Amino acid sequence: MGSNEVLVVGSVAYDTITTPSGGVQGTLGGSANFFSLSASMYTPVRVVGVVGDDYKESDLELLRKRGVDLTGLKITKGETFRWEGRYENDMNQAMTIATHLNVFKDFNPQLPESYCDSQYVFLANIDPELQVSVLTQIKHPVFVGADSMNYWISRKRGQLLDMLRRIDILLINEGECRELTGDWNTIQAVKKICEMGPDHVVIKRGEYGFVLYSLGQLFILPAFPVEVVRDPTGAGDSFAGGFFGWLARTGEKPTLNQLKQACLQGSLMASFTVEDFGLKRLLDLTSTEVDERFKKYIRVTSQPHYTNSM
Amino acid sequence: MGSNEVLVVGSVAYDTITTPSGGVQGTLGGSANFFSLSASMYTPVRVVGVVGDDYKESDLELLRKRGVDLTGLKITKGETFRWEGRYENDMNQAMTIATHLNVFKDFNPQLPESYCDSQYVFLANIDPELQVSVLTQIKHPVFVGADSMNYWISRKRGQLLDMLRRIDILLINEGECRELTGDWNTIQAVKKICEMGPDHVVIKRGEYGFVLYSLGQLFILPAFPVEVVRDPTGAGDSFAGGFFGWLARTGEKPTLNQLKQACLQGSLMASFTVEDFGLKRLLDLTSTEVDERFKKYIRVTSQPHYTNSM
Repeated sequence: MGSNEVLVVGSVAYDTITTPSGGVQGTLGGSANFFSLSASMYTPVRVVGVVGDDYKESDLELLRKRGVDLTGLKITKGETFRWEGRYENDMNQAMTIATHLNVFKDFNPQLPESYCDSQYVFLANIDPELQVSVLTQIKHPVFVGADSMNYWISRKRGQLLDMLRRIDILLINEGECRELTGDWNTIQAVKKICEMGPDHVVIKRGEYGFVLYSLGQLFILPAFPVEVVRDPTGAGDSFAGGFFGWLARTGEKPTLNQLKQACLQGSLMASFTVEDFGLKRLLDLTSTEVDERFKKYIRVTSQPHYTNSM
Repeated sequence: MGSNEVLVVGSVAYDTITTPSGGVQGTLGGSANFFSLSASMYTPVRVVGVVGDDYKESDLELLRKRGVDLTGLKITKGETFRWEGRYENDMNQAMTIATHLNVFKDFNPQLPESYCDSQYVFLANIDPELQVSVLTQIKHPVFVGADSMNYWISRKRGQLLDMLRRIDILLINEGECRELTGDWNTIQAVKKICEMGPDHVVIKRGEYGFVLYSLGQLFILPAFPVEVVRDPTGAGDSFAGGFFGWLARTGEKPTLNQLKQACLQGSLMASFTVEDFGLKRLLDLTSTEVDERFKKYIRVTSQPHYTNSM
């Protein structure tokens, strides 16, 4: 039984978002924030990232209040990473309007000594070279996951393939899966990804849920049905946060059954995130709400009963 | 306990199809054929439709061999309905290249006397006026379902709404659901559809499975994962066939649990159909193959176990 902290390296950002439900300007976002707030529902979280000196103290406090360790979040001269995006009717498709890397451009993550015993590690969507650099600073990782995006798949394929050989699980969306493997069939694609390195893959499908492929076994379920989706930004990182947060509680290398459970928790977290803009819904989320939605989720996706007569 | 026959009215056609896996010219197709072959795995089927005098006797024989009653299939002077379509990488999107209605243009379905006691009725995608005309010829329907398409939704909305008030369940795909309700959120949309008449709705989502909304209850699962999809044509009608075939075996108005079971059987039938061009895979399908795939399907979509320790 090891320690239960999960380490995340990723972006900490201010986002400007427009969706059919409205818009927000400069709202708190970034993969590390979505991941941390979701994972902190289950387990302690350690963040590695960088922000500019424009980053608000109150935004640090929001995470500290949830027990998130920000020792590894560097505050440096300059502006915080900013992303601007838009969604139209199809909430599964984000259109990037602008990306301002700002202080993120020279990000070179150095882990504080206190982070180096982390056992659960999530390398959110950043340059695969940086993902590997973080990973090599960790002494005895037990379970390592990563995300990526089309930009790295096309521009840094060699480094991405190196990263894939070092991780246990890749969590990407369907578009990324197709670009990485060249395969439109998700089942063929997940098998190809496992040949590239990881033992496990999760394909995130938005409202259609997920595909888990784990050492030859498939597990597929839809997402929890959300009736009012206001902003899908961060859903994937929230999934990863719920997923890793759940697994890290055990302090052990996960079994297939635990990976399946983790997918359900990841889906739950994503289903809350999309209900409001940015991190808003995650910030006031209670464990009672999570428990209640979990029961509904099970009810909606459980197999029918079979008796002898039918 | 009533009789177990299910009646289908729909198209009987010759299709020309191109997909990334290849192509076929003038292969046997049409909603009534896909439905009949699927439903006949479970229960006797009665077909209402029309073909031209070019329709091959051997194509009639294929269905008769499966115990499908063709008394209601009219053979008339002229050419059989022909459809030409194409799929690219996204197998969820069919592009129609040509539709030749031919003898279907003057189709005015008259039910043989022997069909009028049918209890289970499926009105496949045809003019909603014809759907109603068939339905009014049936004395005591127990459970009636219908499909439709964008063409009727935009061109014959009034007649479509009249049809919706007379049926128990509508089975349509996501695009049709959006066009019918104007709503991109599937959960909001199924509720709207039930306000239009039917107590139950199934939204067919291709590889992403289905959404069943039944008297306020949701049931959502992905499709059975098919690794080689050669031709998605007829998947929706195969779903409907498995769905109605399963339900008709009971001879009763279905319960929610039976509707859920029927969705699984519908998915199974669709998963076989897409594995080969046209009706090919359904024609040699055995009940042993269906049973084996059913077990796999349950395994892939079953909830994880939870113990007290986790």
